[in-house]
Amino acid sequence: MSDVITFGEIMMRLATPGFLRWNQAPHLELTYGGGEANVAVSCVNYGLTADFVTRLPKNDMAQRAINELRGLGVGTSHIVRGGERIGIYFLESGASQRASKVTYDRAHSAIAEIKPGEVNWDEVFKGARWFHWTGITPALSDTAAEVVEEACEAAKKAGVTISADLNYRKKLWSKEKAQRVMSDLAELIDVCIANEEDAESVFGIKGAEVTSGKIEHRQYEEVAGKLVDKFKFKKVAITLRESHSASRNGWSAMLYENGKSCFSRKYDITIVDRVGGGDSFAGGLIYALLRGDDNDKAINFAVAASCLKHTIPGDYNRVTLEEVEALAKGDASGRVQR
Amino acid sequence: MSDVITFGEIMMRLATPGFLRWNQAPHLELTYGGGEANVAVSCVNYGLTADFVTRLPKNDMAQRAINELRGLGVGTSHIVRGGERIGIYFLESGASQRASKVTYDRAHSAIAEIKPGEVNWDEVFKGARWFHWTGITPALSDTAAEVVEEACEAAKKAGVTISADLNYRKKLWSKEKAQRVMSDLAELIDVCIANEEDAESVFGIKGAEVTSGKIEHRQYEEVAGKLVDKFKFKKVAITLRESHSASRNGWSAMLYENGKSCFSRKYDITIVDRVGGGDSFAGGLIYALLRGDDNDKAINFAVAASCLKHTIPGDYNRVTLEEVEALAKGDASGRVQR
Amino acid sequence: MSDVITFGEIMMRLATPGFLRWNQAPHLELTYGGGEANVAVSCVNYGLTADFVTRLPKNDMAQRAINELRGLGVGTSHIVRGGERIGIYFLESGASQRASKVTYDRAHSAIAEIKPGEVNWDEVFKGARWFHWTGITPALSDTAAEVVEEACEAAKKAGVTISADLNYRKKLWSKEKAQRVMSDLAELIDVCIANEEDAESVFGIKGAEVTSGKIEHRQYEEVAGKLVDKFKFKKVAITLRESHSASRNGWSAMLYENGKSCFSRKYDITIVDRVGGGDSFAGGLIYALLRGDDNDKAINFAVAASCLKHTIPGDYNRVTLEEVEALAKGDASGRVQR
Amino acid sequence: MSDVITFGEIMMRLATPGFLRWNQAPHLELTYGGGEANVAVSCVNYGLTADFVTRLPKNDMAQRAINELRGLGVGTSHIVRGGERIGIYFLESGASQRASKVTYDRAHSAIAEIKPGEVNWDEVFKGARWFHWTGITPALSDTAAEVVEEACEAAKKAGVTISADLNYRKKLWSKEKAQRVMSDLAELIDVCIANEEDAESVFGIKGAEVTSGKIEHRQYEEVAGKLVDKFKFKKVAITLRESHSASRNGWSAMLYENGKSCFSRKYDITIVDRVGGGDSFAGGLIYALLRGDDNDKAINFAVAASCLKHTIPGDYNRVTLEEVEALAKGDASGRVQR
Amino acid sequence: MSDVITFGEIMMRLATPGFLRWNQAPHLELTYGGGEANVAVSCVNYGLTADFVTRLPKNDMAQRAINELRGLGVGTSHIVRGGERIGIYFLESGASQRASKVTYDRAHSAIAEIKPGEVNWDEVFKGARWFHWTGITPALSDTAAEVVEEACEAAKKAGVTISADLNYRKKLWSKEKAQRVMSDLAELIDVCIANEEDAESVFGIKGAEVTSGKIEHRQYEEVAGKLVDKFKFKKVAITLRESHSASRNGWSAMLYENGKSCFSRKYDITIVDRVGGGDSFAGGLIYALLRGDDNDKAINFAVAASCLKHTIPGDYNRVTLEEVEALAKGDASGRVQR
Amino acid sequence: MSDVITFGEIMMRLATPGFLRWNQAPHLELTYGGGEANVAVSCVNYGLTADFVTRLPKNDMAQRAINELRGLGVGTSHIVRGGERIGIYFLESGASQRASKVTYDRAHSAIAEIKPGEVNWDEVFKGARWFHWTGITPALSDTAAEVVEEACEAAKKAGVTISADLNYRKKLWSKEKAQRVMSDLAELIDVCIANEEDAESVFGIKGAEVTSGKIEHRQYEEVAGKLVDKFKFKKVAITLRESHSASRNGWSAMLYENGKSCFSRKYDITIVDRVGGGDSFAGGLIYALLRGDDNDKAINFAVAASCLKHTIPGDYNRVTLEEVEALAKGDASGRVQR
Repeated sequence: MSDVITFGEIMMRLATPGFLRWNQAPHLELTYGGGEANVAVSCVNYGLTADFVTRLPKNDMAQRAINELRGLGVGTSHIVRGGERIGIYFLESGASQRASKVTYDRAHSAIAEIKPGEVNWDEVFKGARWFHWTGITPALSDTAAEVVEEACEAAKKAGVTISADLNYRKKLWSKEKAQRVMSDLAELIDVCIANEEDAESVFGIKGAEVTSGKIEHRQYEEVAGKLVDKFKFKKVAITLRESHSASRNGWSAMLYENGKSCFSRKYDITIVDRVGGGDSFAGGLIYALLRGDDNDKAINFAVAASCLKHTIPGDYNRVTLEEVEALAKGDASGRVQR
Repeated sequence: MSDVITFGEIMMRLATPGFLRWNQAPHLELTYGGGEANVAVSCVNYGLTADFVTRLPKNDMAQRAINELRGLGVGTSHIVRGGERIGIYFLESGASQRASKVTYDRAHSAIAEIKPGEVNWDEVFKGARWFHWTGITPALSDTAAEVVEEACEAAKKAGVTISADLNYRKKLWSKEKAQRVMSDLAELIDVCIANEEDAESVFGIKGAEVTSGKIEHRQYEEVAGKLVDKFKFKKVAITLRESHSASRNGWSAMLYENGKSCFSRKYDITIVDRVGGGDSFAGGLIYALLRGDDNDKAINFAVAASCLKHTIPGDYNRVTLEEVEALAKGDASGRVQR
Repeated sequence: MSDVITFGEIMMRLATPGFLRWNQAPHLELTYGGGEANVAVSCVNYGLTADFVTRLPKNDMAQRAINELRGLGVGTSHIVRGGERIGIYFLESGASQRASKVTYDRAHSAIAEIKPGEVNWDEVFKGARWFHWTGITPALSDTAAEVVEEACEAAKKAGVTISADLNYRKKLWSKEKAQRVMSDLAELIDVCIANEEDAESVFGIKGAEVTSGKIEHRQYEEVAGKLVDKFKFKKVAITLRESHSASRNGWSAMLYENGKSCFSRKYDITIVDRVGGGDSFAGGLIYALLRGDDNDKAINFAVAASCLKHTIPGDYNRVTLEEVEALAKGDASGRVQR
Repeated sequence: MSDVITFGEIMMRLATPGFLRWNQAPHLELTYGGGEANVAVSCVNYGLTADFVTRLPKNDMAQRAINELRGLGVGTSHIVRGGERIGIYFLESGASQRASKVTYDRAHSAIAEIKPGEVNWDEVFKGARWFHWTGITPALSDTAAEVVEEACEAAKKAGVTISADLNYRKKLWSKEKAQRVMSDLAELIDVCIANEEDAESVFGIKGAEVTSGKIEHRQYEEVAGKLVDKFKFKKVAITLRESHSASRNGWSAMLYENGKSCFSRKYDITIVDRVGGGDSFAGGLIYALLRGDDNDKAINFAVAASCLKHTIPGDYNRVTLEEVEALAKGDASGRVQR
Repeated sequence: MSDVITFGEIMMRLATPGFLRWNQAPHLELTYGGGEANVAVSCVNYGLTADFVTRLPKNDMAQRAINELRGLGVGTSHIVRGGERIGIYFLESGASQRASKVTYDRAHSAIAEIKPGEVNWDEVFKGARWFHWTGITPALSDTAAEVVEEACEAAKKAGVTISADLNYRKKLWSKEKAQRVMSDLAELIDVCIANEEDAESVFGIKGAEVTSGKIEHRQYEEVAGKLVDKFKFKKVAITLRESHSASRNGWSAMLYENGKSCFSRKYDITIVDRVGGGDSFAGGLIYALLRGDDNDKAINFAVAASCLKHTIPGDYNRVTLEEVEALAKGDASGRVQR
Repeated sequence: MSDVITFGEIMMRLATPGFLRWNQAPHLELTYGGGEANVAVSCVNYGLTADFVTRLPKNDMAQRAINELRGLGVGTSHIVRGGERIGIYFLESGASQRASKVTYDRAHSAIAEIKPGEVNWDEVFKGARWFHWTGITPALSDTAAEVVEEACEAAKKAGVTISADLNYRKKLWSKEKAQRVMSDLAELIDVCIANEEDAESVFGIKGAEVTSGKIEHRQYEEVAGKLVDKFKFKKVAITLRESHSASRNGWSAMLYENGKSCFSRKYDITIVDRVGGGDSFAGGLIYALLRGDDNDKAINFAVAASCLKHTIPGDYNRVTLEEVEALAKGDASGRVQR
């Protein structure tokens, strides 16, 4: 019985070391990650219990993913075993004006071939308080989308709060398909999480001009308002990334509820690893809301948590509750702790 | 225009460093290889020209494979671009009583989805003298098998000698399917290359007991004789591996023609990397036969070449003609060269 | 509730990479290990449940040890938290005539300062079938020895079989003290495990001349017989290491019961990492006896398991049941598995 | 037949990893580079054909340089083989207020001992459109300077545009000697490329104060004007580096022709590897001018190209045409590409 | 006979590579360092002779520390051998808003168990001109504090100038104990070095608010004045760190004497390794004062020296006199030196 | 004042990691070594004092060589500074039938350009007991040969014993030149050290057939006898290497004096790094003879010392007196020391 349930794909992450481009790297750093697994790790780090549900083949590559999650304290007993391969993503770390580059090799993965009925969702949600998934999961395949729906319905039945991070991936599906599938699922979502581009990509609801690096608060409130009007979300959280370069970002977020928005403090981040930044935000937000923080405190906790993630290699946000709290309370000086 | 043409799959090879098992490795060594590419590299190293034909997607992972081959001097201009992914194989290096372990993630690769007509074989074989492929290529898919047949027929028409290394892979196809497909193709083969198990797996022709580590010359002559009787091969080459352990092997080979067999010198090898050992043998044999060596000299060149391969990390046999000749002439002392 | 309970010290293992001597190494490989933790990992790998009990401080260095065990499937919920430091051992890997060198920095570790009453042994042994410890644990401190006795008595009360590996460490205590303490504990032991030197060091019972590399079966039977006479052990297992060099060992073992000895097959091992070899033997033996193997089958399983350990970096024996079975059934050829 | 011909020295580059100083590094990263080779790589990356001409000994160290260029698509068939050694440069990467440090070990290299007549320049320039060299080549030796002159004359005869990057290196020759030799060669140059210090070092034509970090546009126009007056260059390109620190630079450039100057956009760069920055500018400029860009578009392409180079380890600018175009068109946000 | 004598603890430093957190690191970078050893290395780098006095056990871990110091030119002949272990500190490098984290494992080290009388201080100070220690040494143990006093008295007797860096470490002792012990020792100190927090922690003398990143000159003058009033220090040096983040700091210092303060230039530093920053300041200051610089020149030399330290991995400031002079004279551009 | 003086070249050693061939290595391991420096390190490791004399330029590459020797305890104060470069040798580690490959880049090194008069030999030999050089030093250049002669004469005058290791290097000089120069120097040598090929290469005195791997004792006695007859050496030591492969060697030696030969125990070595094997033998022999061992004990100490060297990466024999003694006394079991 876990507080938080997440469902999605975990992939092998093969990253070039340092700032090497793909054709220079003598070896690839091997870790694992994926939006929903990343959120489960975050929740556990703050003291919640969490279970990650997915489908993985029986081979060494998948078993290591499971062992690492288990080592981090994430429940893995509901993972379905089957299929031929675990998805892979290749990562080349960018710097300055050169963007990081993700290449997916995730087609035909075990989770993409999942079928409704393979997971016993009633069992999974026993005692659970929160269910989280991202827009990547229904994008994997039609059957994966069906399983997301199946899960949401079971969660609803069990009285579990549902959050979804829109997380639009253009290489997985078209905007048209995303809009069609996600609009159906949206009605089951309580807390909608998005970045500054997702709302437009997935629901055609337009936000601010993002490549400029300038973020207008008003525009985001409008977007959140429209989302709530259309889909009846209880809360909408939007992360606000100011991409000065691949090495430096401004990072803040807004939490919107009942026509009222809270904007968090903004961090000026020197980036170590930006992948998983959004997931660490979702993990922080879920934790903060579950422990009963008000919206202002919750959005600041979530942003502090994800600020730290940008300084840690790999998808997972390897931080403690104390570290996030210290930053959320204002100590961003980075002084040596001894 | 190249002397030698090879056709098959090249994969990304992701190997754990040192003797680490899969679940211990912080990173994976990245190289490329595949039976037919390995043979092309060998041929070029001895001074021949060689072209490797395959199908690869347009992405960084595939482009690096091409660039590396081009850097080594292999012709890559006939490679067809298309498809979604390059195949991968994961390698865990064994030692002593623990075997090396290869896990394939090659389904749905670009070459598996090749179709007849995509390669202009008449163009490819212009000026060529030798065509080499392995039993892996027709095992990839039915269409790949068709393209092998298409290639062989074009080669025959162009008067090009054809060699094939049986290279049975049980994870790619059943013995039944292998036997059916390979028997059809066998009639187009001039030089058949096999290890001590392949003849039985592919053609049901039984060889000696191999796990014992003892190799009986007579049994191999019988196998070769039966193969020639059945498929009219001009020459049959069989590699004889005595697996004392993952760290130490005896290595020799036999070349059979017209009822007469030549057995090579046998090397006692301390193994650095055994993968690609058979391919380096084929590469050495093709070179030696193309330059006109008699069977005795040819089989000794091929075995010396492949002996050296076992000492070199990666699939490719990175040796010079001079190094192979020196070993073939008897200097196996390993004294420091300065 | 776990099948197997082990109790002892887990240390940070800091090893020079490759064959570098201490004063050459730019970095140290970081893993964890210790006799009883190693045995727990082995048991879990074969399908048993196992809990490792120890005392560890609340810091990053200790937490990682716990997380890694948890990731491997070992139960860690009975670990007592407290104390100032986790023990460390430095390892320099030897080769050929140069021996591997272990330097301990384990004084004042959390487990050395454990006190009777800190572990709820009755709770720990609920449902357990086997309790294992080594002679290192009582050597850590007088209070640690008291806790071993406390544990053994609780185990006996719970009807749990007790095994102990004598594992004499001359840097931890004198032979005199070892003999005094271990003789008291010996009466609680059902299965006594030793190497060819331990019986003499710990109990003054003399074995064969070991530096010669020659092992006399008769002498070991005598040693086992004397041990049984004196301490009423149900079984005595002795590992027989022939140290040809740091790179090559002969490895076999004897299991003795009721005046009858079974000698296992002997393996000629090219060594990758010899540390933990004895623990992997104990782990294999416990598993085999728990599943009901007869002595001959059990000793061969244990020796095959530990043979494989010598090929794997780190203390833990990262093998599967299938791999051990395959070797125990005779396939020591080390052929590539694909 | 290649579009672009470059001529100069390629060296082994041995760099300390990370930010380690020379006396800390356990190993040295091995790559290759040199002004003219770097330019050839850039041109090929944008779709041109390019040949790099040099002189290299017959040994493993030189052969690898050739193989890597060939792998990247650079023509190497005109490289003269001979001499005793390939030049080396040692690189220590700086950070913040600590400058990167280059130590040359290039005396007596094969190219320094080249003699007129060794390269068949008429053959080299068949079908070529552009010839590029840098001020380093004539600085290597008197005979190298003669071969530069020989090459320029052949290029002129063949109607090939000639560009030269002044690239003054004070450890190779004095300002006096540079001025004497370069003034003779200057009349053969069509496009003169320089950084903010070169014009003064090589031709005694004074530019702006550079250590201040402030760049005055007017001063650069004056310098370019004087250069054109004196040597009749068709175009003069000057790169404008604002060295805030070894970790952060401002980077822009000016292209001057017929009394009119175009200044590019300026980039604020977080530096990964600054070596080869000027060469990547030259490569971008040659490409842009060869495809017919006007001066404004050309200088912006060249600066965008070289901006990206600062983010890539090694001398070569490993970018695609698409990546440079995207940056030149204004997307400097460094957002993750997936 | 050495110009400078320093006395304190040298530790093994085990740091995670890159920005990895403790639970991610496959290996730990191994170097050595400690406040007083770091100062000795700095002094030698500028051309002084220096001896480092400590107590170290006879094992490989300690011998390497000595060999490295000797290799760098530091005198080690007065090091006392004895004790059981060398102290260790674990370091996790922070970035941006995530602080670096130091975990000590130094209890029971050889130096903590030193006793008065073990060092022949009269011999040590023969011909010496300067004695430096830090507040860490007396914090190690009561006997270590006694030995500091013993050393200071011998130094005074020999007419040697004494400097001490307050260096308060809250994990070693309480503020109360520090204040008691240090107040006794303070009267023997000529030059007191502190950072912006130490004066308050050790002597209860309050400085400016430091987490804000803003530094008020006046407040520091007040602190220095109070220190001089109370303890009769000849000079007080205070380093002023503005911690914008773990990746970027402002860095300057003040030197106060006779009621007059000199403030140095301030550097904006992109941090590579911040540990040892204060020690490199002390080393620079001692050198500058020993060669007779006036306070203004001395404080600027010391700050330039320590600015460079922030760019160098490891505790030691591996710079030359020329490099520090160049920066102190104003060249902070970080331009490549070739 | 040092017991032992050695004179020769120290080079940067750049080795491919693992068993990678030159064209595969992403980086090169950086260490230093050279025959005479290696001998000095050995002597110091056994407790003698030793000074290494050479000529080195003033740059980072040379300074590190000096610092490392100093760190190991070798005296470096007589090293002459000057010249342009430190020599380099590239090393590719062989395995099994593939030989290790050394490529020199040592022409024009500082020591090759040394001139008579640059070293104050009378000063150097004050208090010395032994002078050692190898045949490499006079092979570097005519002036280097003159300096060897100058040194030998000063050593003779000072009553210092002189040993020389013939160490023929065919890439440095022809057999004819070696014979001419070395014959002149031979009369100054007391102890002549050679391997099984040197005597023939340098003096035309024929030894046994070496590539066969079989060593005939009688033949070596004959060679030694002839050397003594011709050059009046007091002792002749010949190392006997049986090269089974690059991974496994038999290793023993003979010491001959007054018509009587002592043959050492023979070791069967699994090779880690064979370079410097002969130098470690010389170092062991010098130590053993200096402490007064008889020939039998001396030759066994020297062979045990050099046996251990084969297990240690890098040129230097990083062993203790205790370790060599233990092996010389017969413990070659390689058992873990704890």
